Amino acid sequence: MSESFRHTLRVRYNECDPQGVVFNANYLTYFDITMGELWKELGGYQAMVDAGVDMVVAEATIRYLAPLRFDDEVEIVARIKKLGDTSMITEIAIEDGGEPAATGELRHVFVETGGTKTSPIPDRIREGLKRYAAESG
Amino acid sequence: MSESFRHTLRVRYNECDPQGVVFNANYLTYFDITMGELWKELGGYQAMVDAGVDMVVAEATIRYLAPLRFDDEVEIVARIKKLGDTSMITEIAIEDGGEPAATGELRHVFVETGGTKTSPIPDRIREGLKRYAAESG
Amino acid sequence: MSESFRHTLRVRYNECDPQGVVFNANYLTYFDITMGELWKELGGYQAMVDAGVDMVVAEATIRYLAPLRFDDEVEIVARIKKLGDTSMITEIAIEDGGEPAATGELRHVFVETGGTKTSPIPDRIREGLKRYAAESG
Amino acid sequence: MSESFRHTLRVRYNECDPQGVVFNANYLTYFDITMGELWKELGGYQAMVDAGVDMVVAEATIRYLAPLRFDDEVEIVARIKKLGDTSMITEIAIEDGGEPAATGELRHVFVETGGTKTSPIPDRIREGLKRYAAESG
Repeated sequence: MSESFRHTLRVRYNECDPQGVVFNANYLTYFDITMGELWKELGGYQAMVDAGVDMVVAEATIRYLAPLRFDDEVEIVARIKKLGDTSMITEIAIEDGGEPAATGELRHVFVETGGTKTSPIPDRIREGLKRYAAESG
Repeated sequence: MSESFRHTLRVRYNECDPQGVVFNANYLTYFDITMGELWKELGGYQAMVDAGVDMVVAEATIRYLAPLRFDDEVEIVARIKKLGDTSMITEIAIEDGGEPAATGELRHVFVETGGTKTSPIPDRIREGLKRYAAESG
Repeated sequence: MSESFRHTLRVRYNECDPQGVVFNANYLTYFDITMGELWKELGGYQAMVDAGVDMVVAEATIRYLAPLRFDDEVEIVARIKKLGDTSMITEIAIEDGGEPAATGELRHVFVETGGTKTSPIPDRIREGLKRYAAESG
Repeated sequence: MSESFRHTLRVRYNECDPQGVVFNANYLTYFDITMGELWKELGGYQAMVDAGVDMVVAEATIRYLAPLRFDDEVEIVARIKKLGDTSMITEIAIEDGGEPAATGELRHVFVETGGTKTSPIPDRIREGLKRYAAESG
């Protein structure tokens, strides 16, 4: 059974809007930060780019369940839902005090660095991701 | 037949990331800006809030079709897909040089200002939105 | 006597914080946007970079005089205070309804694209900037 | 002799621009985050606001010394340069790998919550700040 990748961050003041809660687009930034942390564990995003493979977001979905406020410590939980040949789908949840504040999905496509041609997920990355993947292949 | 609401903006340098393209979360900011412009036409978001009704994003979906770059002039096209009693779904597309760069949907829920209790869409707002709505009721 | 370069923008919702006013760092973003608009008039920032010269901010000062709120239409007024060989100082003011909301200065240094070695301001850029320069040389 | 308040953060991808370095306005956001952390130690910013006193940035200065890149772990070092009756000046430095990447100053003014009338710095905050203050009174 697969594990979840978890990253904790605290809401910054500038991420909140006049409603006093985190602005909706920043949830997507939190997703992105978490993917960056996952890649850090896999050897670093920049190392992958330097080795010739980059990744782009192809699709994002977010369901907002509860507002997040300044200084809330939130845990972001990611699992790889589908690990394809040149793309992957990640399920992400944001939890605030153990309660779900948002759920969503990101579909990433791997491409040649500096281009748009799709590229296989590098072996080293694929091996590292399997730990968090419900399904692969 | 319904019209589309259109808003034009130019990509700012700080909205782009080291890949040289608009950072993925900023597409959602562009969606939000466009909704703000639509509300401006309907009498102003703040006026609605002051009159007791606020709105929150409940769900967002974005499909990224093409990168956007610094200084690109993009047109954001919105149509109300579903105009409910206390919620609405908006279809949004971002076009760059006439070509689609992204499509997506936003589901908004109307709530009492300062609270979480759902509220009917104010009549004046509903009337104004019908012009851009494919379906209502 | 020199002219001022003027750029108008409207405050976006996501640029405001829980105090209901534009977050302090975004004033600096407004400064940067205005420099980008000035460069657009001079032939484009990217064209200068492609031709081998880039610019970086070396120093910034902002005096905050009045809050800015969502949907305020502000005018940003820039004048070149000092046009040096490899650097320039720009005086910038933000006006909201004709009243000053902020004043500041930016010092930019010109460098070789992709590096840190200082570079003379390209002739074409220098010529274009003179129109807005109080002093040069 | 006074201490420095220190806060560590890691540069996020979305904070970097097409030059591959942290966008200039985000240094000011880093300053603000650090002040928020300092206030957290002093009992919380929101608690002060709820007790009737808010604070606004009146002036900011930044000298950019070195670029910051994605995933750099930076230490932000703050000292209170001047602790006045209704205002304070904070000296801030950003260090990257022990080397200075930026220095700056923030002048904050204390005001009544929701208003613009200046307010004395609350006693509890003043006491907490003295630890980091070179000079007071």
